[in-house]
Amino acid sequence: MRAIDLIRKKRDAAELTREEIEWLIRAYTEGQVPDYQMSAWLMAVLIRGMTGAELAALTEAMLHSGQVLDFSNLPAPKVDKHSTGGVGDKTSLVLAPLAASAGLVVPMISGRGLGHTGGTLDKLEAIPGFRIELPMADFRRNLAEVGCAMIGQNAQVAPADKKIYALRDVTATVESPALICASIMSKKLAEGLDALLLDVKTGSGAFMKTLDAAAHLAGLMVETGTRMGKRVVALITDMDQPLGRKVGNALEVEECLEVMRGGGPDDLRELCLEEAAWMLYLGNAAKSVAEGKEIAGRQIASGAALAKFRQMVEAQGGDAAVVDDPARLPQARQHEQLISEEAGYVGSIDCEQVGVASLVIGGGRERKEDVIDPAVGLVLHKKVGDAVERGEPVCTIHFNSDARLGEARRLLAASFHVAAERPAGRRPLVHRVIGAAQPAAVSTS
Amino acid sequence: MRAIDLIRKKRDAAELTREEIEWLIRAYTEGQVPDYQMSAWLMAVLIRGMTGAELAALTEAMLHSGQVLDFSNLPAPKVDKHSTGGVGDKTSLVLAPLAASAGLVVPMISGRGLGHTGGTLDKLEAIPGFRIELPMADFRRNLAEVGCAMIGQNAQVAPADKKIYALRDVTATVESPALICASIMSKKLAEGLDALLLDVKTGSGAFMKTLDAAAHLAGLMVETGTRMGKRVVALITDMDQPLGRKVGNALEVEECLEVMRGGGPDDLRELCLEEAAWMLYLGNAAKSVAEGKEIAGRQIASGAALAKFRQMVEAQGGDAAVVDDPARLPQARQHEQLISEEAGYVGSIDCEQVGVASLVIGGGRERKEDVIDPAVGLVLHKKVGDAVERGEPVCTIHFNSDARLGEARRLLAASFHVAAERPAGRRPLVHRVIGAAQPAAVSTS
Repeated sequence: MRAIDLIRKKRDAAELTREEIEWLIRAYTEGQVPDYQMSAWLMAVLIRGMTGAELAALTEAMLHSGQVLDFSNLPAPKVDKHSTGGVGDKTSLVLAPLAASAGLVVPMISGRGLGHTGGTLDKLEAIPGFRIELPMADFRRNLAEVGCAMIGQNAQVAPADKKIYALRDVTATVESPALICASIMSKKLAEGLDALLLDVKTGSGAFMKTLDAAAHLAGLMVETGTRMGKRVVALITDMDQPLGRKVGNALEVEECLEVMRGGGPDDLRELCLEEAAWMLYLGNAAKSVAEGKEIAGRQIASGAALAKFRQMVEAQGGDAAVVDDPARLPQARQHEQLISEEAGYVGSIDCEQVGVASLVIGGGRERKEDVIDPAVGLVLHKKVGDAVERGEPVCTIHFNSDARLGEARRLLAASFHVAAERPAGRRPLVHRVIGAAQPAAVSTS
Repeated sequence: MRAIDLIRKKRDAAELTREEIEWLIRAYTEGQVPDYQMSAWLMAVLIRGMTGAELAALTEAMLHSGQVLDFSNLPAPKVDKHSTGGVGDKTSLVLAPLAASAGLVVPMISGRGLGHTGGTLDKLEAIPGFRIELPMADFRRNLAEVGCAMIGQNAQVAPADKKIYALRDVTATVESPALICASIMSKKLAEGLDALLLDVKTGSGAFMKTLDAAAHLAGLMVETGTRMGKRVVALITDMDQPLGRKVGNALEVEECLEVMRGGGPDDLRELCLEEAAWMLYLGNAAKSVAEGKEIAGRQIASGAALAKFRQMVEAQGGDAAVVDDPARLPQARQHEQLISEEAGYVGSIDCEQVGVASLVIGGGRERKEDVIDPAVGLVLHKKVGDAVERGEPVCTIHFNSDARLGEARRLLAASFHVAAERPAGRRPLVHRVIGAAQPAAVSTS
C-alpha cells in the first residue's frame, strides 16, 4: 500500500477500506509515513468527512496502536463518562465515586485542562497528596478494592492518537468532528469498558457552540462506540454559562463535596444525578434511567458516595481529611468582588470569557508548560435569570497574584450581561439524548 | 503571521490576502514553514480552490522566489509557447525557429518528459551534441544573435515551484488546476515575456481528459497571465490521438524537419502554422491570426524557418548536418510491425497507451532517474478515420532491446480500435480559443 493512494482516495471523497485505514495508522505511528503525507490526509478527512465504517476502523486502529486494558476479572460492569469540556464542568469528581458506590467499576482516565476549559486531573491535584499517576498494578487493585480510580493517560494508551493529535494541533485539523471522535473514543475504549456515557457540551463555553455541531459530534461518537460493541449514549448538555457556581481547581473540589453532602448548586447537583442515572442504566445497575436517578439520590443521601470519594482519595495518596474539612484545600490569599453597575436580571453570561478570566489569574494554562495555581478561581453569585441590584456583587475573584487581575476583571465585567427584563424561558440542562437504547426511559427532569 | 492561521483560512474556503500568500511562499521556500503545514495547505487549496486574485498572488510569489529574466535590451517582442503535454507533441521544435525567423524573440525554457508524455528537452538531446544547459550569458547572446534558444530550467528560476512541486508529487496535490496554473505560469513568466501562447491539450492522451477540465485550467492561466500584464491566449487542442505520425525522440525531430521542409503530416503541420500564427499575432508581428498564418506559411516555404533551426542547433553545439541529413539522428537497430487483425476503419486510438508503449521500449521515463534511448519509438501508419485492411501494418515499433517489447505490442494492439464504419465527424485540431483579444480573427481552419 502507498500513502499517496490513500490520500488521493480521501481527497476525492471515496471511502477507505478497513485494511487501508489500519495500514495508514500503523505505518504513520511506526514512522514509515511522514508527517507531510499524514497532514494532507488529515486535511482531506476534515473537509470530506468519513463514513461510519471508516470512522469505526480509524478509531479501532488508533485504539489498537497501544495497550488496551482488560478488567474482565472484575465481575461488575465497567462504565465511564467523558465530557468534551467546559467551564466549571466538575461532574467527574462526583460521578466516579457515586457510580462506584452503586456497584459499578469506573476506570476513569482523564486529561488536563487546556485553554478556557478545566481538566479533571488539575482538579484532583488540588487535593494535597493526590496522585494521578498510578502504576497499572495499583490502578487495577484500586478498581478491585474501591471500585473507582481516576488517573492520567500514560504513553502506552493509544500512541497513534498522541502522535496524530500533535500533528493536528499545528495543521488546523483539530476541528474535524471525525478526528475528534476517533481521538476521544480510541482513548476511552482503551479503558476496557462495557458502557460509556458521553457528555457533549454546547453553548458559549463549549467547543461546539451550536446544538447542531454538538449533535453531529455526539452522533459520530455514539455510532462509533456502538459499532465497536459498547453501550454508548450521549447527553448534549448546556454550557452557555458555567456549571455550578465555582470555577477553579480547589474551588471545584469544594463544590463537588457540597454535592456529595446533598447540597451544592441546583444545576450541578441535577446534572450529576442525571449522568449517574445514565451510567447506572447503561451498566445494568438500574432498569431505567428513572430508577438510576433514584438510586443515585439515595447514594448521596446515605453518605455512600462521599464515603467512596474519601476511600478513593486515600487509595490515591490524597489527604482524606479534606473531605470533611474543605478548608484544608489550598486557599487564595486575596479576594475581590465584581460589582454590578446596573440593576435588572442576568440575561446571559459569556461562558468562555469566564473560563479565560479564571485562566489568566492562574487557574488554567495558555501553554502546555504553564503551572497552575490550584487555589485561585471564581465564585459566581449570580447566574442567568437571577435578579441583581446595582452595587451588588455578581462574582468574587480568588487570587494570589494581581499581575493579570485587571485583565480578569475586564473579562468578567464584559461577560455578565444585565438586562431590564428577566430572560424568557430557560435553556434546559440536557438539550438532547443521542443513542438512547430505551428512549422511553429518558428523564431530563 | 502564522502558517496555521493561513491553513485554517483556506480550509474554511476564505480568501487569502496577497500579503498572506507572499508570506507563506517565502517562509516555506526559506524553510521556516515545515512540509507538514504546507501539505495541509496544499490539500485545502486543491479541495477549496482559489480566487483569481489569490492565484495571481500565488503565481507572482512563486515567480519572485527566484531569478526573473529581463530581455528588454532586445527590441523584438518576447513570445513563448507552453504545452500541457501530450503524445507526439513536438510543435515547440518547429515553433521556436519559425517564430524567430519572422522577427520574434523566443526564450524557451522547457522540461523533460515524465510518464506517457514526451519532453522537449529529451527531443532536442536526440540531436548529437545539442546542449540544453547553457550559461545564462550564452542564452542571452543566442537570443540576440539567433532570435531563439531552447534550454532547460535552472535552479535559479522559481525555486518555490521546485520545492512545492516535489511536495505535491508525494501528497496527491498535483491535480489541482490552481496549483498547476501557478506552477506553469510562475516558470513561464520568469522568462521575461511580453506574450505567451498556451496549448492546453485535451483527450485520451492529455492530462486533462475532458474539454471542460482543459477549459477550466486554460481559463485560470489566461486570467493569471492577464492580471500580470501579459498578452496570453490558450488554444485547447486535441490529444485524443498522437499528434503527427511519429512518437519517440529522434523520430519526432525527424518529423519536425519534414514540417520545416514544407511536408510532414497534415495535423502536425496545420497545428504548427496555427500556433505560430497566434504567437506572431500576440507578439504584434502580425495584425491578425490570419495574417500570422500567411507569414508562417511563407517562412516555411522560403526555407527561413529551417535555416533558423539550423542556426539554433549550431549555436547550441548540435550537429547541424542533421538538418539536411536526418539519417544522422540515432537510429534503432530493430523494427517490428503491428498488423491489423481486422478490416475496417480506425475508430479511435487510446492515446495515453500509445505514449506508455513508447515509454516501455525506452523512449520515456517511469522514474526521474531512468535513462532514455533517443532512437526508439513508434511510427503510426494509420490514424483515426483511416481505412485499414486485414494484415495491413498500423504501426512500426523502432526498438533496441526486446526486454519489454511484448508489453509494448500488447499496449499498442489494445490502443487501435478498428470499426466497421468510418467514424462520423472528426475531432477538430483546435477545440476552443480562450482569452482571445480579438475573437473575430480566430481561424481554426
